[in-house]
Amino acid sequence: MESVKSQSYEVHLDELAKAAINQHIANKNYSKIFLLVDENTKEHCLPIFKEIFDHSIDSLLEIKSGEENKHIHTCLQLWEDLSNFDGDRKSILINLGGGVLTDMGGFVASTFKRGIDFINIPTTLLSMVDASIGGKTGVDLGSLKNQVGVINQPQMVLIFPKFLKTLDARQTKSGYAEMLKHGLIRDKAYWEDIVAKADFTDAARIQKSIAIKNDVVLQDPTEQGVRKILNFGHTLGHAIESYCLDNPNKKTLLHGEAIAAGMILEGYLSHELRGLSKLALDEIKKAFLTYFDKVEFTEDDIDAILQLLKYDKKNSHGNVNFVLLQDIGNAATDIKIPEELFSKAFAYYKE
Amino acid sequence: MESVKSQSYEVHLDELAKAAINQHIANKNYSKIFLLVDENTKEHCLPIFKEIFDHSIDSLLEIKSGEENKHIHTCLQLWEDLSNFDGDRKSILINLGGGVLTDMGGFVASTFKRGIDFINIPTTLLSMVDASIGGKTGVDLGSLKNQVGVINQPQMVLIFPKFLKTLDARQTKSGYAEMLKHGLIRDKAYWEDIVAKADFTDAARIQKSIAIKNDVVLQDPTEQGVRKILNFGHTLGHAIESYCLDNPNKKTLLHGEAIAAGMILEGYLSHELRGLSKLALDEIKKAFLTYFDKVEFTEDDIDAILQLLKYDKKNSHGNVNFVLLQDIGNAATDIKIPEELFSKAFAYYKE
Repeated sequence: MESVKSQSYEVHLDELAKAAINQHIANKNYSKIFLLVDENTKEHCLPIFKEIFDHSIDSLLEIKSGEENKHIHTCLQLWEDLSNFDGDRKSILINLGGGVLTDMGGFVASTFKRGIDFINIPTTLLSMVDASIGGKTGVDLGSLKNQVGVINQPQMVLIFPKFLKTLDARQTKSGYAEMLKHGLIRDKAYWEDIVAKADFTDAARIQKSIAIKNDVVLQDPTEQGVRKILNFGHTLGHAIESYCLDNPNKKTLLHGEAIAAGMILEGYLSHELRGLSKLALDEIKKAFLTYFDKVEFTEDDIDAILQLLKYDKKNSHGNVNFVLLQDIGNAATDIKIPEELFSKAFAYYKE
Repeated sequence: MESVKSQSYEVHLDELAKAAINQHIANKNYSKIFLLVDENTKEHCLPIFKEIFDHSIDSLLEIKSGEENKHIHTCLQLWEDLSNFDGDRKSILINLGGGVLTDMGGFVASTFKRGIDFINIPTTLLSMVDASIGGKTGVDLGSLKNQVGVINQPQMVLIFPKFLKTLDARQTKSGYAEMLKHGLIRDKAYWEDIVAKADFTDAARIQKSIAIKNDVVLQDPTEQGVRKILNFGHTLGHAIESYCLDNPNKKTLLHGEAIAAGMILEGYLSHELRGLSKLALDEIKKAFLTYFDKVEFTEDDIDAILQLLKYDKKNSHGNVNFVLLQDIGNAATDIKIPEELFSKAFAYYKE
């Protein structure tokens, strides 16, 4: 499977990925090799990684899985671990896990002694098709997602679809929401293909999604323009995700589950404001509700979610800017939403 | 006074500095202007800053002064403050303080929402001639200095020598140690000038020191080669500083006081290993002891300091590399020290 070239690094798949990491480690004279896992990837992915990796690991670092641990205190523990295990500026950190782990491991590596090398090996579908590209690293601040972080590129990203067999269906579907988004914002044929026939672990599709995201990021590395389209569904989706995480009465949603709801809601806004056809809107709603249970929202929930909107890190000067669809495969950015449309969007979602 | 051009920003002095910040703020459409102070700069420097600054400050953020507060927990408080006061990606943070404050404020700005603009206004002689150039930001990890951070450049650095009048003599002398270092590693005439006649607040000398450091940093932004000469006196100096900070029985040293001792010790190593003349060595010792009291070291102190050396962030693969002088004004890097020379160096220091 062909590699995808990003800014300063490549995303390699399968056999090429195995060759790439082994050659990289053989060529670089790293002082220490650190591997970061969580309790899940330690059990399910580490044995597979050991078969792939020809070198020896100097120290295994472990964190607890889950967005609630994506906190600066976890980073503090990791910085101390790196220091205690004699990490220095010539060390490398290999991050083996989902997006929470690779975001946090990337941030820790980017800031330990002002920056050491790191490699990301995403083990969930979501992190393969989303966090693998763009160099975003960081942690949450309370319920506010990714408020603290830096943009920094890994040495390489390695995709092994075999890790997906270690995930349950709910996790895998969460990643599928991002793949569907890639079709919606950029490639109608790809959307139609993945809507028509679900296959969550197909390497060619994973590669296609990575290539779409990479293409967008390369056009706009600093997120001044076109890159914003990647936020489709995320403005409301992030608020929904934060709200449910923070509220003991709500079921905690996976990222893909939250943005699936976000994409239906923002699809409705697209229909109202950017001429997305009712037919396309209904098709979007149907596609997402095939894979994702409808989330229950009370009026109080909706009010609280709209309050959270104004803290989204994308919001400049207190304004909330949305990405909307003009058509499937074609997105527009920087759109303000008249306040009254939000309740109509939630009403359409509930229909 | 002429400005010093660094990589992506300029260091402006006095009247030019006043004009530069006011014009910058007028030209940029910042959503919020945050000013960071500590209890000392709030009392002594903020009134002066308000006379300089033509714009209004949206929120004043305050931290406690002192190296012991240069910790990730202080950063967490600042990130939360920025978030609570509606900071967004178009906000700017102005750091008004010494090196601890500008290092930490720079790190917080570089990582808040993956990076917002910041301006440094160093208020101590040490931070004017040292932290003002190079883009190093960060915090300590326990007793290990600057273990967590990033390299990132401010929008500009502003030097107002009038702030030095707010400092006590001990603080000012601490900065003088770095100025003396600039002469030792790069410019014999400058060394002779500042040794001959002490003047801690002379703007032309401050500018000369900034220009020397800037010249070195521009030649080697990523610290692969010549930039390492800036660490003269710092390898042992940092270990001494950390040790005294952590040990309740030792008087806490200011940075300049610690590296003054470090420069005498590393001067001795230079004499032993790189042919620095005994005459030059004695001249160095005499110059530093004119301004800085001799530090008392027991044998146990020395053992503990040498243990700390191996954690210095400059040490790769567990090796300790020193910068030594071949002559006054001429430094060499990457020198290993035979273990037995350290006790001889401390013996010379105590003589």
